[in-house]
Amino acid sequence: MIKKLQDKLHLEIPLTKLMQLNIKEYNEHELITTAPLSININDKGTAFGGSLSTITIISSWSMCWLISESLGYDSKNIVVIKNTNNYLKPVTKDIFCHTIKPTQKEIQIVKEKLEKKGSASLTIQSKIIEDDQVCVEFEGVYVIKL
Amino acid sequence: MIKKLQDKLHLEIPLTKLMQLNIKEYNEHELITTAPLSININDKGTAFGGSLSTITIISSWSMCWLISESLGYDSKNIVVIKNTNNYLKPVTKDIFCHTIKPTQKEIQIVKEKLEKKGSASLTIQSKIIEDDQVCVEFEGVYVIKL
Repeated sequence: MIKKLQDKLHLEIPLTKLMQLNIKEYNEHELITTAPLSININDKGTAFGGSLSTITIISSWSMCWLISESLGYDSKNIVVIKNTNNYLKPVTKDIFCHTIKPTQKEIQIVKEKLEKKGSASLTIQSKIIEDDQVCVEFEGVYVIKL
Repeated sequence: MIKKLQDKLHLEIPLTKLMQLNIKEYNEHELITTAPLSININDKGTAFGGSLSTITIISSWSMCWLISESLGYDSKNIVVIKNTNNYLKPVTKDIFCHTIKPTQKEIQIVKEKLEKKGSASLTIQSKIIEDDQVCVEFEGVYVIKL
């Protein structure tokens, strides 16, 4: 599933390949994505805000895609409709983004909405963490349509 | 000034070059930036949310840089600390981002804060517009430090 997601992103969303976004791990708690500092650097030698925003947006999008796949849907229409980023500390090394998996109860609600209405919205949170400290907090609202 | 900004971005923030961000115009009302759809496309054939977020973040950052330069400062420390994006409509063509220039009164307050405290915060708004319709609304809070 990770390989399918990685290939999909790099093939269909060229910026994810250019910024060298990689899917590192997906487990029952979270999705971990990474990107090297070198290509995502800014004028201050730390990670560029645009790269930080992009990795959070696409990682939370990826969580929606993984949930949609796990429910047996091959949704081609998952979109972000709103997001907020708080930049708490500069990121000084390669970027690691942790996207929190919704609870089984939340996923069940998504499943029911998709079955009944053909669409569902989901609020997803990602955090960019360096040396156990949260550098960026992200929250995005996504809509999945069948 | 536009050339200096363009060169600075492409040289110091490689993602802006990879996504082919260009500074199109800077006048008394706004800064207009563009990026081609082709390289910033998503799986649905419209502009990628990460690219839309990035162009708004860097365009509003650029407005802060232009203001800092116009006040005679060569600030090397302008950072985004918070941003919000609302995605109202998909972007189906090349991306055009309009960043609103703060009023002279707001710029005067920034000048006074920089003189007195050596730092100032600024809230900047960018909009991505296609066929006279706002597709993305952005608001970012930036800090300029001397």
